[in-house]
Amino acid sequence: MRRVALLMALICCFPLLTIGQQEEQAKLAGFFGNSAASEQDWEQKFRAIPSPQNMIADMKLLAARPHHVGSPYDKQNSEWILAQYKKWGWDAHIETFNVLFPTPKFRLLELISPTHFVAKLQEPPVPGDPTSYQQKEQLPTYNAYSPDGDVTAPLVYVNYGVPDDYDTLARLGISVKGAIVIARYGHSWRGIKPKLAHEHGAIGCIIYSDPRDDGYYQGDVYPKGPWRPSEGVQRGSVMKMEIYPGDPLTPGVGADAHAKRLALKDAKTIEDIPVLPISYGDALPLLKALGGPVAPPDWRGALPITYHVGPGPAKVHLKLQFNWDLKPVHDVIAKLAGSTYPDEWVIRGNHYDGWVNGAQDPIAGQVALLEEARSLGEIYQQGWRPKRTIIYCSWDGEEPGLLGSTEWVEEHGDELATHAVAYINSDVNSRGYLEAEGSHSLESLINTIADEIPDPEKEGMSVGQRHRLAELAHAQNPEERKKLESEKNFIIGDLGSGSDYSAFIDHAGIASINYGFGGEAGGGIYHSVYDDYYWFSHFDDGPEVYGRALAQVVGTTMMRLADSDVPPLDFTGLSDAVGRFVDELKKLDKTEIAQMEWQNKEIQDGIFTASTDPTKKFVLPATEDVPQPLDFSPLDSAVKSLKQSAQSYQSAFDKGAPGLVSVPGASFEVVGEDLIKTERDLLTQEGLPGRPWYKNQLYAPGIYTGYGVKTIPAVREAIEQKNWSQATEEIGIVAGVLQKEADSINAAASALQSAGQ
Amino acid sequence: MRRVALLMALICCFPLLTIGQQEEQAKLAGFFGNSAASEQDWEQKFRAIPSPQNMIADMKLLAARPHHVGSPYDKQNSEWILAQYKKWGWDAHIETFNVLFPTPKFRLLELISPTHFVAKLQEPPVPGDPTSYQQKEQLPTYNAYSPDGDVTAPLVYVNYGVPDDYDTLARLGISVKGAIVIARYGHSWRGIKPKLAHEHGAIGCIIYSDPRDDGYYQGDVYPKGPWRPSEGVQRGSVMKMEIYPGDPLTPGVGADAHAKRLALKDAKTIEDIPVLPISYGDALPLLKALGGPVAPPDWRGALPITYHVGPGPAKVHLKLQFNWDLKPVHDVIAKLAGSTYPDEWVIRGNHYDGWVNGAQDPIAGQVALLEEARSLGEIYQQGWRPKRTIIYCSWDGEEPGLLGSTEWVEEHGDELATHAVAYINSDVNSRGYLEAEGSHSLESLINTIADEIPDPEKEGMSVGQRHRLAELAHAQNPEERKKLESEKNFIIGDLGSGSDYSAFIDHAGIASINYGFGGEAGGGIYHSVYDDYYWFSHFDDGPEVYGRALAQVVGTTMMRLADSDVPPLDFTGLSDAVGRFVDELKKLDKTEIAQMEWQNKEIQDGIFTASTDPTKKFVLPATEDVPQPLDFSPLDSAVKSLKQSAQSYQSAFDKGAPGLVSVPGASFEVVGEDLIKTERDLLTQEGLPGRPWYKNQLYAPGIYTGYGVKTIPAVREAIEQKNWSQATEEIGIVAGVLQKEADSINAAASALQSAGQ
Repeated sequence: MRRVALLMALICCFPLLTIGQQEEQAKLAGFFGNSAASEQDWEQKFRAIPSPQNMIADMKLLAARPHHVGSPYDKQNSEWILAQYKKWGWDAHIETFNVLFPTPKFRLLELISPTHFVAKLQEPPVPGDPTSYQQKEQLPTYNAYSPDGDVTAPLVYVNYGVPDDYDTLARLGISVKGAIVIARYGHSWRGIKPKLAHEHGAIGCIIYSDPRDDGYYQGDVYPKGPWRPSEGVQRGSVMKMEIYPGDPLTPGVGADAHAKRLALKDAKTIEDIPVLPISYGDALPLLKALGGPVAPPDWRGALPITYHVGPGPAKVHLKLQFNWDLKPVHDVIAKLAGSTYPDEWVIRGNHYDGWVNGAQDPIAGQVALLEEARSLGEIYQQGWRPKRTIIYCSWDGEEPGLLGSTEWVEEHGDELATHAVAYINSDVNSRGYLEAEGSHSLESLINTIADEIPDPEKEGMSVGQRHRLAELAHAQNPEERKKLESEKNFIIGDLGSGSDYSAFIDHAGIASINYGFGGEAGGGIYHSVYDDYYWFSHFDDGPEVYGRALAQVVGTTMMRLADSDVPPLDFTGLSDAVGRFVDELKKLDKTEIAQMEWQNKEIQDGIFTASTDPTKKFVLPATEDVPQPLDFSPLDSAVKSLKQSAQSYQSAFDKGAPGLVSVPGASFEVVGEDLIKTERDLLTQEGLPGRPWYKNQLYAPGIYTGYGVKTIPAVREAIEQKNWSQATEEIGIVAGVLQKEADSINAAASALQSAGQ
Repeated sequence: MRRVALLMALICCFPLLTIGQQEEQAKLAGFFGNSAASEQDWEQKFRAIPSPQNMIADMKLLAARPHHVGSPYDKQNSEWILAQYKKWGWDAHIETFNVLFPTPKFRLLELISPTHFVAKLQEPPVPGDPTSYQQKEQLPTYNAYSPDGDVTAPLVYVNYGVPDDYDTLARLGISVKGAIVIARYGHSWRGIKPKLAHEHGAIGCIIYSDPRDDGYYQGDVYPKGPWRPSEGVQRGSVMKMEIYPGDPLTPGVGADAHAKRLALKDAKTIEDIPVLPISYGDALPLLKALGGPVAPPDWRGALPITYHVGPGPAKVHLKLQFNWDLKPVHDVIAKLAGSTYPDEWVIRGNHYDGWVNGAQDPIAGQVALLEEARSLGEIYQQGWRPKRTIIYCSWDGEEPGLLGSTEWVEEHGDELATHAVAYINSDVNSRGYLEAEGSHSLESLINTIADEIPDPEKEGMSVGQRHRLAELAHAQNPEERKKLESEKNFIIGDLGSGSDYSAFIDHAGIASINYGFGGEAGGGIYHSVYDDYYWFSHFDDGPEVYGRALAQVVGTTMMRLADSDVPPLDFTGLSDAVGRFVDELKKLDKTEIAQMEWQNKEIQDGIFTASTDPTKKFVLPATEDVPQPLDFSPLDSAVKSLKQSAQSYQSAFDKGAPGLVSVPGASFEVVGEDLIKTERDLLTQEGLPGRPWYKNQLYAPGIYTGYGVKTIPAVREAIEQKNWSQATEEIGIVAGVLQKEADSINAAASALQSAGQ
């Protein structure tokens, strides 16, 4: 004990992993009796196996050629991946779905006035970078699920093209009606930009990558540095995934051979106006030709021009035609059957399709997943047996719209509803900090594991410690620091959308995590031909040490979930999170009201009048009726119930452990079933207002953010849209969902107590 | 009364000037009996006279040719101005001083490695702009008071070249020792940049105008718009004015024929290393050639490059030679003698010398001053007689280093000490908002007058209302708004340096105001050949309506100060300000300590280690000894005394008024003398640490900011420099000064009470 005390005094009290804590880890949450020690042995064996050398070799192979949906190399990769799983002892197969995946037939963008300029729409090869020369196999630069179109109109610059930007345009007295808008990438899912432009009357949409956001403003451009070169283009889907992701023709069901398909014209997730992504090299002449008011300061990028808003005198012609074909997506699915609870599934996924060569996105994540599978296969050979069934999924078709994962979840909806314990996702992987987003019932588990995995760049520091210390380093003020220091666990992010977890958490209500490292390497090759092995090896995690760290973090998470007597869900993390969400809603309501009151005052007292330049147009907003504050008491009561149930489950879980030692594993089955139910309880059959595919009442991507999460989305978005009566109604619905969740947690607590008797 | 109440209900309660308030203005602060009504009559007559047409004509004339110190047109302007004063009935003369004013003999800046490039150092004429063609008369682009030099060295980019930037360089492990630095203009008086570079071991300094700060990033460049074109250069002085301004060879005394002059080598205000300003056109090849780490985000400008810090591989050669001549500066001084208190002087000034044609800077201010003088002359003809002596000063030689005003104040130091009541300055004038900085004993007067002058762009709104409403519009948060709404007066700015008030307030302790309109037009022609009539008439206050507003504001201020029975100084404004300064010092001390503690923690807990990228160099700072908080109790006591004395003066002033009606004017003479003394009491004979010329203990330009004010500078800068023992010592000194000030205010209160009996 003395030694521990001395160490505790020497190393400061903050989040370093002390010897005392290490000793405590012999008690692993969810493992009873001596199962913890055995688990730790197997985990140690597992974590020693993932090999950076293998990951480098795998990346070289999988990213060797363009491998988008429907391409020959994508198919070849799926077969190679299947063979690996099989070689490593997994029960693996390929599941194929046929989905709508448009590809370009004709693309033209030209400035026709006041001068003439034809956009290149072509990324040039880079000397030294071999795969950038594979132009014949590369998908042209385009946005998937743009409609065909042929439009000519004056141009208007709309900044990021998000709702706030249209408010600014209204103040400037500028309409996009009948115009073609040009928006820069960033600050929203890209599909939001044409959607909003259409809602405001625009007839076409151009999206470009401003050098301020991922070009020379950030750092040296490729191949001198990692950032986007002048002609680099971000491809990408503009599917209206905020309505539903996956195949546009088969919402809610797997796009298998028997699926009933919508007619193309009835698909609700295809954009309404033609949209095309371009490089900043192509954007410069267009933006330079704009007149009208000078863009507001936060609208200005890093091009060497004065940014103007327009409309005109720049006039552009945009013509796009696509092949509207069905293409196959090949999900590679591999299983290790559970020894004790085979009907409880722990699922892991990462996609393997890319927009072009896709080394960072997604192969950096895929090779980590493959090394996990190889390593688990190896310890399986050595005698390790997971209690639950483990399913590894190498998804196809993520890039166009989460096609592979969504169709699979829809196809297996009923099974998943009763069997799935959790889904663990990864995607892009890079150098830097552990990032984890997900269901807050898994927050405690994530923290525990993050403290066990060493950071490859920082000797003697775990990835969890590094995460916490970096959060402290980036805290904005002493209050934020104090708050961070007071927290037992680092708070994981909330899941929005943008990768394959979406169908699992948002539609099927399966507890999910999205893991990845990043935040250090930077770069501007996202969805371009330059996201390849040459780039990755020069500017990112070339030695694949963060690939290994990812495999260690995720593999350990899978084992902990699959091997535990009772899955280590922590509902206090969940109830704390829900309490936080409700507090945020209250604050949002207060802020909206205060802003409306303030704006009314600005109008009435002449504050706008005083502070505007009479030589510049400014349109006064209209005064608004200020509503009464919302009544959040139903949510307050629900949070209270949830906190009580979480507390009672936790104490059953904690107290139960010693008494549970001698009880045979099988008696926890009912607990597992109850736990599986708890996450499903967050769903409603009706789903969110206007988008029934999204059934989770706690997390969803925003209807006007796309990637960005909205927690308690039905209430939050009603407030944001100033729909006060709907907000009140949704408060009641969500409160009911949370009360049901509390009941299920109480049931699980009782089951756990019974199991321990 | 009903009508008033109705209006009060209709127009909201905030700062609109109500009828009730207007009625109250019949009582003018400092005017007793019926003197107020007479004053208002004269002021109304005065305010009707200033004519935009005259100002336009005067600007066309005065800015017709380059008119820098020592130029023929500068001389010609002085004579023309003199003739005007005389024509308008003023007792006017020219006072000439001979001062050191270096001009370029040779300028060379070349990139010699890795490629060769010779900087143009020349502003091209602009078609349509006639005066931009007067190249023979234009001063070349240069920084006055750079030494001669011939240096060749690797280049280092130092952002704005202020102290924080050198801290950042230290963290990056980059030294400027033996290097030539390139800094961008902004965030400090330009002389601070070579000074700090020299202190850190650099051997040369280049200063450029980044397009982000006043070029195309801000708006269209000249002649399409008002902003700085690619080859535009900001000339300017780099004299070490934070030590003393004025002639470098005659510190503290007027540079008249008899003055003893220092040898050039002994002058303390000439820079130590050669320094040259350049355009962004010339800067681009230099910055583009830099290697080393990518500049931190807030170091990046708007050039279309990745900003690197260096050092090298860019290597530059800088060679500069100057004519080190004495040149004459011609101050034009005009008087209207006071009728009642001729020995109490109210002084007004604006310079007329420019760097080139100088339309906005300073002719826009000079033409307002001239219209004030003409208008005062006209009402004088009509019978108006100021009680106090009014002195109008058209300064020469402001641009190189406040030469004309400083030498005049030094020459007339003894007279000013006993006679000067206040000094009112202006300089640049532009479109927009009334800006006022100055001695806080004048804050109440400024507010009163600002509410009386209509804003020329905003019908029915005074310039004071517009100022207050714009402050509200720009408030960052509801708390700031609430605070602003609760304030009776808008708070005027604190005076730093940068114009001719400096010798008055900082050296001679004369209550000063600096007035100007601005904040709306913008532009990037400061100190370039493009600051001319063509530019001003197209992009700024072409109709001279803000010229007229300035003349109305300043002329009314002059009349109010010169005509009042007792000058309307308000010491509650002063004592509130001092209380605020002391609170800021306490907060600064607390913040410094908290930052040191936090940084020590960052080092010890590994927060720096966790949050840095191992592929990039980062030098850990050393841990620091954290001091005890300073004892501010002497200042607290002094503030208490000051507030009490201010209150007792104010109640004597308020209560005295009715009783004073019948007392003859002459009996206030002793009050006036006491009041004059109060501002002088803020001086100490020893001045500020290391710079005895600066004697004012309340206001000074910062030793490392140059323009930027430091209030209670001796204490504040000791804290900033972490010199805790000196801070304690200075707290005692300043507390003594404030106690003395309180005593003098009490004496003035007694004198006022006696005068009223």
